[in-house]
Amino acid sequence: MPTDVTVAHDPALVAAALRKGLRSLAKAVVVITCRHGGQRHAMTATAVSELSMDPPSMLICVNKTASLFEPLSQGADFCINILAAHQGGISTLCAGREKGEARFAVGDWRQSALGHAYLADAQASFFCRNVANMAYGTHGVFIGEVLEVLDTAPINPLVYMDGRYGSFAVAPG
Amino acid sequence: MPTDVTVAHDPALVAAALRKGLRSLAKAVVVITCRHGGQRHAMTATAVSELSMDPPSMLICVNKTASLFEPLSQGADFCINILAAHQGGISTLCAGREKGEARFAVGDWRQSALGHAYLADAQASFFCRNVANMAYGTHGVFIGEVLEVLDTAPINPLVYMDGRYGSFAVAPG
Repeated sequence: MPTDVTVAHDPALVAAALRKGLRSLAKAVVVITCRHGGQRHAMTATAVSELSMDPPSMLICVNKTASLFEPLSQGADFCINILAAHQGGISTLCAGREKGEARFAVGDWRQSALGHAYLADAQASFFCRNVANMAYGTHGVFIGEVLEVLDTAPINPLVYMDGRYGSFAVAPG
Repeated sequence: MPTDVTVAHDPALVAAALRKGLRSLAKAVVVITCRHGGQRHAMTATAVSELSMDPPSMLICVNKTASLFEPLSQGADFCINILAAHQGGISTLCAGREKGEARFAVGDWRQSALGHAYLADAQASFFCRNVANMAYGTHGVFIGEVLEVLDTAPINPLVYMDGRYGSFAVAPG
């Protein structure tokens, strides 16, 4: 019976099912930063993806209620920092009630020649020029052309899954 | 010296640095399917993200060279299946040289009432209506409004990081 299923599905129920299903979408945790009007902003996120190698690019999804949304909408460039497994405290701080400068209180934050705030001991930092965006629902999708990348070793990123922080374990065998 | 750094950076070198930095972007592994012209297509991917809860939505990034690209560009709906930790073989098959129906040779693939091919024992399957897209570089970004979600327990997804398959390990303490 291939009928118009959108009529039959309650968006609130689908949203609840989506939240439940997304619990298994394991993700590295990043902190996105931008600078706007002389102020630094930082936000913990998992809605980030590699996009293209030509041009080198990544994308981020940002809620319209986030403090970064307005700066990003006005074209502010941004930096994506992949957290290391021991940086759960930074994730919690940059996802919490503290706003603005207070989110930079923990971690080895530095300023790049381009003016981006970046976390020097993150697993990797991607310095992005804000080149395109698309609004959808409650969120904006922002595409960043990657201008420069810093990374650290060994690789052991913070991973978020099923509401918990953890790390990557190599498959046995 | 905040000058126009894009002039100073070789895109090929930046792409190499991006690839290296992305090794720490741990990700769940998904297989995206769509149906078009009576044929099923499947593709392993990690470039997927949750987007909005209102409307319930996700996005995927698909290379223009992928067999799914043309169907998706023509508006084909799609299904995102999060693989479980033991489904590395399905990931390899759907990322490899086999095309079309041959990619469905392994796994408990079924057909939904909507016509989507889905993996019945995946961690979660998100049935999406293809509602918007944006081209960027070598890729297309496709937004799916989530119509229905199936999920299985326990939660133990396949995770890809630093070129290897593995799983999630809870942080000690």
